[in-house]
Amino acid sequence: MTARIDQFDVVAFDADDTLWQSEDSFHHAEQRFAELVGPYVPVGVDIDESLRGVERADLSVSGYGVKAFTISMIKAAIVASNRTVPIEVIEELVEIGQHMLTEPVHVLPHVPEVLEVVGAATPIVLITKGDLVHQTRKVTTSGLEHHFAEIEILLEKDPPTYAKILKRLGVEPERFLMVGNSVKSDILPVLALGAFAVHVPYHLTWSLEQVDRHEEEFAELASIAELPAWLGL
Amino acid sequence: MTARIDQFDVVAFDADDTLWQSEDSFHHAEQRFAELVGPYVPVGVDIDESLRGVERADLSVSGYGVKAFTISMIKAAIVASNRTVPIEVIEELVEIGQHMLTEPVHVLPHVPEVLEVVGAATPIVLITKGDLVHQTRKVTTSGLEHHFAEIEILLEKDPPTYAKILKRLGVEPERFLMVGNSVKSDILPVLALGAFAVHVPYHLTWSLEQVDRHEEEFAELASIAELPAWLGL
Repeated sequence: MTARIDQFDVVAFDADDTLWQSEDSFHHAEQRFAELVGPYVPVGVDIDESLRGVERADLSVSGYGVKAFTISMIKAAIVASNRTVPIEVIEELVEIGQHMLTEPVHVLPHVPEVLEVVGAATPIVLITKGDLVHQTRKVTTSGLEHHFAEIEILLEKDPPTYAKILKRLGVEPERFLMVGNSVKSDILPVLALGAFAVHVPYHLTWSLEQVDRHEEEFAELASIAELPAWLGL
Repeated sequence: MTARIDQFDVVAFDADDTLWQSEDSFHHAEQRFAELVGPYVPVGVDIDESLRGVERADLSVSGYGVKAFTISMIKAAIVASNRTVPIEVIEELVEIGQHMLTEPVHVLPHVPEVLEVVGAATPIVLITKGDLVHQTRKVTTSGLEHHFAEIEILLEKDPPTYAKILKRLGVEPERFLMVGNSVKSDILPVLALGAFAVHVPYHLTWSLEQVDRHEEEFAELASIAELPAWLGL
Protein backbone atom coordinates (compact mmCIF):
# COMPACT_ATOMS: atom_id res chain seq x y z
CA MET A 1 0.00 0.00 0.00
CA THR A 2 1.19 3.47 -0.87
CA ALA A 3 -0.61 6.79 -1.06
CA ARG A 4 -0.24 10.21 -2.62
CA ILE A 5 0.12 13.41 -0.66
CA ASP A 6 -2.80 15.01 -2.55
CA GLN A 7 -5.15 12.43 -0.98
CA PHE A 8 -4.73 14.28 2.34
CA ASP A 9 -5.68 17.73 3.64
CA VAL A 10 -3.86 17.15 6.93
CA VAL A 11 -1.03 14.82 7.94
CA ALA A 12 -0.74 14.36 11.72
CA PHE A 13 2.23 13.05 13.67
CA ASP A 14 2.40 11.44 17.08
CA ALA A 15 5.26 12.80 19.21
CA ASP A 16 6.68 10.38 21.82
CA ASP A 17 8.75 7.67 20.10
CA THR A 18 7.67 8.96 16.70
CA LEU A 19 9.43 12.36 16.61
CA TRP A 20 11.61 11.98 19.70
CA GLN A 21 12.69 9.37 22.24
CA SER A 22 10.41 8.81 25.21
CA GLU A 23 10.12 5.16 26.18
CA ASP A 24 13.92 4.86 26.57
CA SER A 25 13.70 7.31 29.45
CA PHE A 26 10.93 5.32 31.19
CA HIS A 27 12.84 2.10 30.52
CA HIS A 28 15.97 3.54 32.13
CA ALA A 29 13.94 4.79 35.11
CA GLU A 30 12.43 1.32 35.58
CA GLN A 31 15.91 -0.18 35.67
CA ARG A 32 17.04 2.36 38.30
CA PHE A 33 13.83 1.66 40.26
CA ALA A 34 14.65 -2.07 40.31
CA GLU A 35 18.23 -1.39 41.42
CA LEU A 36 17.19 1.02 44.18
CA VAL A 37 14.14 -0.81 45.55
CA GLY A 38 15.10 -4.43 44.77
CA PRO A 39 17.28 -4.86 47.92
CA TYR A 40 14.25 -4.10 50.16
CA VAL A 41 11.77 -6.40 48.47
CA PRO A 42 11.05 -9.90 49.86
CA VAL A 43 12.40 -12.85 47.88
CA GLY A 44 9.90 -13.98 45.27
CA VAL A 45 8.37 -10.56 44.63
CA ASP A 46 8.76 -9.48 40.99
CA ILE A 47 9.77 -5.84 41.32
CA ASP A 48 9.01 -4.98 37.68
CA GLU A 49 5.56 -6.51 37.96
CA SER A 50 4.91 -4.64 41.23
CA LEU A 51 5.56 -1.32 39.48
CA ARG A 52 3.49 -2.27 36.43
CA GLY A 53 0.60 -3.31 38.69
CA VAL A 54 0.60 0.06 40.46
CA GLU A 55 0.85 1.91 37.14
CA ARG A 56 -2.08 -0.04 35.73
CA ALA A 57 -4.18 0.59 38.84
CA ASP A 58 -3.38 4.33 38.83
CA LEU A 59 -3.91 4.94 35.12
CA SER A 60 -7.57 5.96 35.21
CA VAL A 61 -6.95 8.36 38.10
CA SER A 62 -3.50 9.70 37.26
CA GLY A 63 -3.31 9.39 33.48
CA TYR A 64 -0.18 9.21 31.36
CA GLY A 65 3.06 10.99 31.96
CA VAL A 66 6.07 11.39 34.15
CA LYS A 67 4.36 12.84 37.24
CA ALA A 68 1.90 9.93 37.36
CA PHE A 69 4.84 7.54 36.84
CA THR A 70 6.83 9.18 39.65
CA ILE A 71 3.97 8.76 42.10
CA SER A 72 3.49 5.15 40.95
CA MET A 73 7.20 4.45 41.57
CA ILE A 74 6.95 5.86 45.11
CA LYS A 75 3.80 3.85 45.88
CA ALA A 76 5.28 0.67 44.45
CA ALA A 77 8.52 1.15 46.43
CA ILE A 78 6.61 1.52 49.70
CA VAL A 79 4.22 -1.36 49.11
CA ALA A 80 6.65 -3.87 47.54
CA SER A 81 9.20 -3.31 50.34
CA ASN A 82 6.59 -3.62 53.11
CA ARG A 83 7.53 -0.06 54.15
CA THR A 84 11.21 -0.95 54.63
CA VAL A 85 12.52 1.22 51.83
CA PRO A 86 14.72 4.05 53.22
CA ILE A 87 13.70 7.67 52.75
CA GLU A 88 16.86 8.26 50.67
CA VAL A 89 15.48 5.89 48.03
CA ILE A 90 12.21 7.86 47.89
CA GLU A 91 14.29 11.00 47.45
CA GLU A 92 16.12 9.39 44.52
CA LEU A 93 12.84 8.31 42.90
CA VAL A 94 11.59 11.91 43.10
CA GLU A 95 14.86 13.06 41.49
CA ILE A 96 14.52 10.50 38.70
CA GLY A 97 11.09 11.95 37.92
CA GLN A 98 12.35 15.55 38.01
CA HIS A 99 15.21 14.60 35.71
CA MET A 100 12.79 13.00 33.24
CA LEU A 101 10.71 16.19 33.20
CA THR A 102 13.69 18.39 32.43
CA GLU A 103 16.08 16.30 30.34
CA PRO A 104 16.63 17.53 26.77
CA VAL A 105 14.51 16.07 23.99
CA HIS A 106 16.31 13.60 21.72
CA VAL A 107 14.81 14.06 18.28
CA LEU A 108 14.87 10.84 16.25
CA PRO A 109 16.96 10.56 13.06
CA HIS A 110 15.53 12.08 9.82
CA VAL A 111 12.59 13.74 11.64
CA PRO A 112 13.42 17.41 10.84
CA GLU A 113 13.90 16.68 7.13
CA VAL A 114 10.73 14.60 6.89
CA LEU A 115 8.63 17.30 8.61
CA GLU A 116 10.16 19.89 6.29
CA VAL A 117 9.29 17.95 3.12
CA VAL A 118 5.81 16.79 4.17
CA GLY A 119 4.98 20.15 5.78
CA ALA A 120 5.86 21.99 2.57
CA ALA A 121 3.28 19.89 0.69
CA THR A 122 0.36 19.92 3.17
CA PRO A 123 -0.44 21.30 6.65
CA ILE A 124 0.96 19.05 9.37
CA VAL A 125 -0.21 18.83 12.96
CA LEU A 126 1.11 17.19 16.10
CA ILE A 127 -1.23 14.98 18.14
CA THR A 128 0.12 13.64 21.40
CA LYS A 129 -1.27 12.48 24.71
CA GLY A 130 0.01 12.91 28.24
CA ASP A 131 0.90 15.63 30.64
CA LEU A 132 0.22 19.22 29.46
CA VAL A 133 3.26 20.84 31.01
CA HIS A 134 5.76 18.13 30.03
CA GLN A 135 4.47 17.65 26.48
CA THR A 136 4.44 21.43 25.98
CA ARG A 137 8.02 21.68 27.25
CA LYS A 138 9.12 18.93 24.86
CA VAL A 139 7.37 20.56 21.89
CA THR A 140 8.84 24.00 22.56
CA THR A 141 12.39 22.74 23.18
CA SER A 142 12.44 20.20 20.33
CA GLY A 143 13.18 22.73 17.61
CA LEU A 144 10.26 21.20 15.66
CA GLU A 145 7.37 23.40 16.80
CA HIS A 146 7.47 25.76 13.79
CA HIS A 147 6.58 22.92 11.41
CA PHE A 148 3.14 22.39 12.93
CA ALA A 149 -0.05 24.27 12.12
CA GLU A 150 -1.67 22.92 15.30
CA ILE A 151 -0.49 21.11 18.40
CA GLU A 152 -3.05 18.97 20.24
CA ILE A 153 -2.26 17.45 23.64
CA LEU A 154 -4.95 14.92 24.52
CA LEU A 155 -6.01 12.96 27.55
CA GLU A 156 -6.65 9.83 25.52
CA LYS A 157 -6.26 8.78 21.90
CA ASP A 158 -9.54 7.06 21.18
CA PRO A 159 -11.96 7.37 18.26
CA PRO A 160 -14.23 10.04 19.90
CA THR A 161 -11.21 12.22 20.70
CA TYR A 162 -9.80 11.90 17.18
CA ALA A 163 -13.27 12.67 15.79
CA LYS A 164 -13.38 15.87 17.83
CA ILE A 165 -9.93 16.92 16.61
CA LEU A 166 -10.82 16.23 12.96
CA LYS A 167 -13.95 18.32 13.36
CA ARG A 168 -11.95 21.12 14.96
CA LEU A 169 -9.42 20.96 12.09
CA GLY A 170 -12.25 20.89 9.56
CA VAL A 171 -10.91 17.78 7.82
CA GLU A 172 -12.88 14.77 6.58
CA PRO A 173 -11.63 11.39 7.88
CA GLU A 174 -10.86 10.14 4.35
CA ARG A 175 -8.56 13.18 3.86
CA PHE A 176 -6.64 12.62 7.13
CA LEU A 177 -3.43 10.66 7.68
CA MET A 178 -1.95 9.84 11.10
CA VAL A 179 1.69 8.76 11.51
CA GLY A 180 2.82 7.14 14.77
CA ASN A 181 4.53 4.31 16.61
CA SER A 182 1.63 3.00 18.69
CA VAL A 183 -0.84 0.61 17.04
CA LYS A 184 -3.19 1.07 20.01
CA SER A 185 -3.14 4.91 20.07
CA ASP A 186 -2.09 6.10 16.62
CA ILE A 187 -3.40 3.48 14.21
CA LEU A 188 -6.51 1.53 15.30
CA PRO A 189 -8.64 4.49 16.52
CA VAL A 190 -7.83 6.42 13.32
CA LEU A 191 -8.76 3.49 11.08
CA ALA A 192 -11.99 3.12 13.07
CA LEU A 193 -13.01 6.58 11.83
CA GLY A 194 -12.28 5.72 8.20
CA ALA A 195 -9.09 7.77 8.15
CA PHE A 196 -5.60 6.59 7.16
CA ALA A 197 -2.63 5.65 9.31
CA VAL A 198 1.03 4.79 8.86
CA HIS A 199 2.74 2.76 11.54
CA VAL A 200 6.42 3.49 12.21
CA PRO A 201 7.37 1.02 14.97
CA TYR A 202 9.78 2.00 17.74
CA HIS A 203 12.12 -0.53 19.31
CA LEU A 204 10.45 -0.12 22.74
CA THR A 205 6.73 -0.17 23.52
CA TRP A 206 5.29 0.48 26.98
CA SER A 207 3.52 -2.64 28.26
CA LEU A 208 0.25 -0.73 28.70
CA GLU A 209 0.37 0.32 25.01
CA GLN A 210 0.84 -3.20 23.67
CA VAL A 211 -1.97 -4.81 21.70
CA ASP A 212 -2.09 -8.53 21.21
CA ARG A 213 -2.99 -8.73 17.56
CA HIS A 214 -4.60 -6.63 14.92
CA GLU A 215 -6.39 -7.75 11.83
CA GLU A 216 -6.72 -4.31 10.30
CA GLU A 217 -4.65 -3.43 7.28
CA PHE A 218 -2.41 -0.42 7.49
CA ALA A 219 0.93 0.71 6.13
CA GLU A 220 4.05 0.02 8.13
CA LEU A 221 7.34 1.77 7.45
CA ALA A 222 10.70 0.71 8.88
CA SER A 223 11.69 4.35 9.37
CA ILE A 224 10.04 7.74 9.22
CA ALA A 225 12.65 8.54 6.55
CA GLU A 226 10.52 6.45 4.15
CA LEU A 227 7.41 8.60 4.62
CA PRO A 228 8.04 11.19 1.86
CA ALA A 229 8.59 8.48 -0.76
CA TRP A 230 5.50 6.63 0.49
CA LEU A 231 3.54 9.84 -0.12
CA GLY A 232 5.05 10.28 -3.59
CA LEU A 233 7.15 13.26 -2.49
CA MET B 1 -20.46 48.78 35.58
CA THR B 2 -23.06 46.46 34.10
CA ALA B 3 -23.39 44.88 30.69
CA ARG B 4 -25.96 43.30 28.45
CA ILE B 5 -25.87 39.71 27.28
CA ASP B 6 -26.19 40.78 23.62
CA GLN B 7 -22.78 42.47 23.87
CA PHE B 8 -21.21 39.01 23.93
CA ASP B 9 -20.95 36.12 21.47
CA VAL B 10 -19.33 33.85 24.05
CA VAL B 11 -19.35 33.84 27.85
CA ALA B 12 -16.55 31.76 29.38
CA PHE B 13 -16.31 30.39 32.92
CA ASP B 14 -13.30 29.39 34.94
CA ALA B 15 -13.84 26.09 36.81
CA ASP B 16 -11.83 25.68 40.05
CA ASP B 17 -13.31 27.91 42.79
CA THR B 18 -15.69 29.47 40.27
CA LEU B 19 -17.96 26.49 39.47
CA TRP B 20 -16.76 24.09 42.14
CA GLN B 21 -14.57 23.98 45.24
CA SER B 22 -10.88 23.37 44.69
CA GLU B 23 -8.68 25.45 46.98
CA ASP B 24 -10.44 24.07 50.08
CA SER B 25 -9.06 20.67 49.21
CA PHE B 26 -5.50 21.99 48.85
CA HIS B 27 -5.92 23.98 52.05
CA HIS B 28 -7.01 20.86 53.91
CA ALA B 29 -4.10 18.89 52.45
CA GLU B 30 -1.65 21.59 53.58
CA GLN B 31 -3.02 21.34 57.11
CA ARG B 32 -2.60 17.55 57.10
CA PHE B 33 0.90 17.98 55.68
CA ALA B 34 1.83 20.29 58.59
CA GLU B 35 0.36 17.84 61.14
CA LEU B 36 2.14 14.83 59.62
CA VAL B 37 5.53 16.37 58.86
CA GLY B 38 5.71 19.05 61.58
CA PRO B 39 6.96 16.65 64.30
CA TYR B 40 10.07 15.81 62.20
CA VAL B 41 11.04 19.37 61.31
CA PRO B 42 13.75 21.24 63.31
CA VAL B 43 12.57 24.06 65.58
CA GLY B 44 12.45 27.34 63.73
CA VAL B 45 11.62 25.86 60.31
CA ASP B 46 8.32 27.20 58.93
CA ILE B 47 6.69 24.05 57.55
CA ASP B 48 4.10 25.96 55.47
CA GLU B 49 6.82 28.10 53.92
CA SER B 50 8.93 25.00 53.17
CA LEU B 51 6.09 23.51 51.16
CA ARG B 52 5.34 26.79 49.37
CA GLY B 53 9.02 27.17 48.49
CA VAL B 54 9.13 23.71 46.89
CA GLU B 55 5.85 24.36 45.05
CA ARG B 56 7.16 27.65 43.70
CA ALA B 57 10.45 26.05 42.59
CA ASP B 58 8.64 23.14 40.88
CA LEU B 59 5.97 25.18 39.11
CA SER B 60 7.76 25.71 35.79
CA VAL B 61 8.69 22.03 35.56
CA SER B 62 5.63 20.36 37.06
CA GLY B 63 2.81 22.81 36.37
CA TYR B 64 -0.47 23.12 38.24
CA GLY B 65 -2.48 20.35 39.72
CA VAL B 66 -2.72 17.64 42.31
CA LYS B 67 0.03 15.35 40.98
CA ALA B 68 2.56 18.19 40.97
CA PHE B 69 1.36 19.15 44.47
CA THR B 70 1.73 15.56 45.71
CA ILE B 71 5.32 15.38 44.50
CA SER B 72 6.04 18.80 46.05
CA MET B 73 4.65 17.58 49.40
CA ILE B 74 6.89 14.51 49.31
CA LYS B 75 9.99 16.57 48.41
CA ALA B 76 9.21 19.17 51.07
CA ALA B 77 8.67 16.46 53.72
CA ILE B 78 12.05 14.87 52.96
CA VAL B 79 13.99 18.13 52.80
CA ALA B 80 12.34 19.99 55.72
CA SER B 81 12.78 16.97 58.02
CA ASN B 82 16.42 16.42 57.03
CA ARG B 83 15.40 12.94 55.83
CA THR B 84 14.00 11.95 59.25
CA VAL B 85 10.38 11.67 58.11
CA PRO B 86 9.16 8.04 58.38
CA ILE B 87 8.10 6.14 55.28
CA GLU B 88 4.56 5.87 56.71
CA VAL B 89 4.22 9.65 56.40
CA ILE B 90 5.27 9.52 52.74
CA GLU B 91 2.64 6.83 52.24
CA GLU B 92 0.01 9.10 53.80
CA LEU B 93 1.04 12.02 51.58
CA VAL B 94 0.62 9.81 48.51
CA GLU B 95 -2.82 8.82 49.78
CA ILE B 96 -3.81 12.46 50.36
CA GLY B 97 -2.95 13.14 46.70
CA GLN B 98 -4.89 10.09 45.46
CA HIS B 99 -7.87 11.16 47.54
CA MET B 100 -7.76 14.66 46.06
CA LEU B 101 -7.76 13.19 42.53
CA THR B 102 -10.80 11.02 43.19
CA GLU B 103 -12.96 12.93 45.70
CA PRO B 104 -16.36 14.05 44.38
CA VAL B 105 -16.70 17.53 42.95
CA HIS B 106 -18.51 20.02 45.19
CA VAL B 107 -20.38 22.34 42.86
CA LEU B 108 -20.77 25.84 44.35
CA PRO B 109 -24.22 27.26 45.20
CA HIS B 110 -26.35 28.67 42.33
CA VAL B 111 -23.94 27.44 39.63
CA PRO B 112 -26.31 25.06 37.78
CA GLU B 113 -29.09 27.69 37.58
CA VAL B 114 -26.71 30.42 36.43
CA LEU B 115 -25.22 28.22 33.69
CA GLU B 116 -28.73 27.27 32.61
CA VAL B 117 -29.89 30.89 32.29
CA VAL B 118 -26.72 32.32 30.70
CA GLY B 119 -26.26 29.27 28.47
CA ALA B 120 -29.79 29.63 27.13
CA ALA B 121 -28.97 33.18 26.00
CA THR B 122 -25.51 32.68 24.47
CA PRO B 123 -22.96 29.87 23.98
CA ILE B 124 -20.93 29.30 27.13
CA VAL B 125 -17.53 27.65 27.36
CA LEU B 126 -15.36 26.40 30.20
CA ILE B 127 -11.73 27.54 30.35
CA THR B 128 -9.60 26.00 33.06
CA LYS B 129 -5.93 25.28 33.63
CA GLY B 130 -4.21 22.37 35.27
CA ASP B 131 -3.90 18.66 34.91
CA LEU B 132 -5.67 17.09 31.90
CA VAL B 133 -6.83 13.90 33.58
CA HIS B 134 -8.00 15.51 36.83
CA GLN B 135 -9.73 18.49 35.20
CA THR B 136 -11.44 16.16 32.73
CA ARG B 137 -12.62 13.93 35.57
CA LYS B 138 -14.04 16.92 37.44
CA VAL B 139 -15.82 18.23 34.34
CA THR B 140 -17.38 14.86 33.50
CA THR B 141 -18.48 14.10 37.07
CA SER B 142 -19.72 17.62 37.90
CA GLY B 143 -23.06 17.24 36.15
CA LEU B 144 -22.31 20.56 34.41
CA GLU B 145 -20.61 19.36 31.23
CA HIS B 146 -23.74 19.51 29.05
CA HIS B 147 -23.99 23.29 29.49
CA PHE B 148 -20.73 23.96 27.66
CA ALA B 149 -20.20 24.28 23.91
CA GLU B 150 -16.44 23.87 24.40
CA ILE B 151 -14.14 22.81 27.23
CA GLU B 152 -10.57 24.10 27.12
CA ILE B 153 -7.97 22.80 29.56
CA LEU B 154 -4.88 24.99 29.34
CA LEU B 155 -1.32 24.90 30.58
CA GLU B 156 -1.35 28.57 31.47
CA LYS B 157 -3.89 31.40 31.43
CA ASP B 158 -1.93 34.24 29.88
CA PRO B 159 -2.84 36.67 27.09
CA PRO B 160 -1.30 34.61 24.22
CA THR B 161 -3.18 31.50 25.35
CA TYR B 162 -6.49 33.38 25.63
CA ALA B 163 -5.83 34.95 22.21
CA LYS B 164 -5.40 31.47 20.72
CA ILE B 165 -8.65 30.25 22.31
CA LEU B 166 -10.60 33.29 21.09
CA LYS B 167 -9.26 32.71 17.58
CA ARG B 168 -10.24 29.04 17.79
CA LEU B 169 -13.73 29.99 18.99
CA GLY B 170 -13.99 32.62 16.23
CA VAL B 171 -14.91 35.39 18.68
CA GLU B 172 -13.62 38.99 18.72
CA PRO B 173 -12.17 40.10 22.08
CA GLU B 174 -14.77 42.88 22.46
CA ARG B 175 -17.53 40.22 22.18
CA PHE B 176 -15.99 37.91 24.82
CA LEU B 177 -16.69 37.80 28.56
CA MET B 178 -14.70 35.74 31.08
CA VAL B 179 -16.06 34.94 34.56
CA GLY B 180 -13.71 33.69 37.26
CA ASN B 181 -12.30 33.92 40.77
CA SER B 182 -8.64 34.60 39.97
CA VAL B 183 -7.62 38.18 39.17
CA LYS B 184 -4.26 36.87 37.93
CA SER B 185 -5.62 34.12 35.64
CA ASP B 186 -9.20 35.03 34.75
CA ILE B 187 -9.30 38.83 34.74
CA LEU B 188 -6.03 40.64 33.92
CA PRO B 189 -4.98 38.57 30.86
CA VAL B 190 -8.49 38.89 29.41
CA LEU B 191 -8.59 42.67 29.92
CA ALA B 192 -5.14 42.86 28.28
CA LEU B 193 -6.72 41.54 25.07
CA GLY B 194 -9.51 44.13 25.15
CA ALA B 195 -12.10 41.57 26.25
CA PHE B 196 -14.38 41.77 29.29
CA ALA B 197 -14.14 40.04 32.66
CA VAL B 198 -16.23 39.59 35.78
CA HIS B 199 -14.49 38.76 39.03
CA VAL B 200 -16.34 36.52 41.50
CA PRO B 201 -13.94 36.23 44.47
CA TYR B 202 -13.62 32.96 46.38
CA HIS B 203 -12.87 32.94 50.09
CA LEU B 204 -9.53 31.16 49.53
CA THR B 205 -6.84 32.05 47.00
CA TRP B 206 -3.69 29.97 46.46
CA SER B 207 -0.63 32.03 47.41
CA LEU B 208 0.88 31.58 43.94
CA GLU B 209 -2.28 33.06 42.38
CA GLN B 210 -2.30 36.18 44.53
CA VAL B 211 -1.57 39.54 42.88
CA ASP B 212 -0.51 42.48 44.98
CA ARG B 213 -2.62 45.18 43.44
CA HIS B 214 -4.46 45.91 40.23
CA GLU B 215 -5.29 49.25 38.76
CA GLU B 216 -7.50 47.88 36.00
CA GLU B 217 -11.22 48.38 36.20
CA PHE B 218 -13.43 45.34 36.08
CA ALA B 219 -16.72 44.20 37.49
CA GLU B 220 -16.76 42.32 40.77
CA LEU B 221 -19.78 40.33 41.96
CA ALA B 222 -20.21 38.98 45.47
CA SER B 223 -21.72 35.77 44.12
CA ILE B 224 -22.12 34.06 40.77
CA ALA B 225 -25.87 34.21 41.50
CA GLU B 226 -25.70 37.91 40.54
CA LEU B 227 -24.37 37.24 37.05
CA PRO B 228 -27.68 36.88 35.18
CA ALA B 229 -28.96 40.20 36.54
CA TRP B 230 -25.62 41.85 35.73
CA LEU B 231 -26.12 40.66 32.14
CA GLY B 232 -29.70 41.95 32.08
CA LEU B 233 -31.15 38.43 32.09
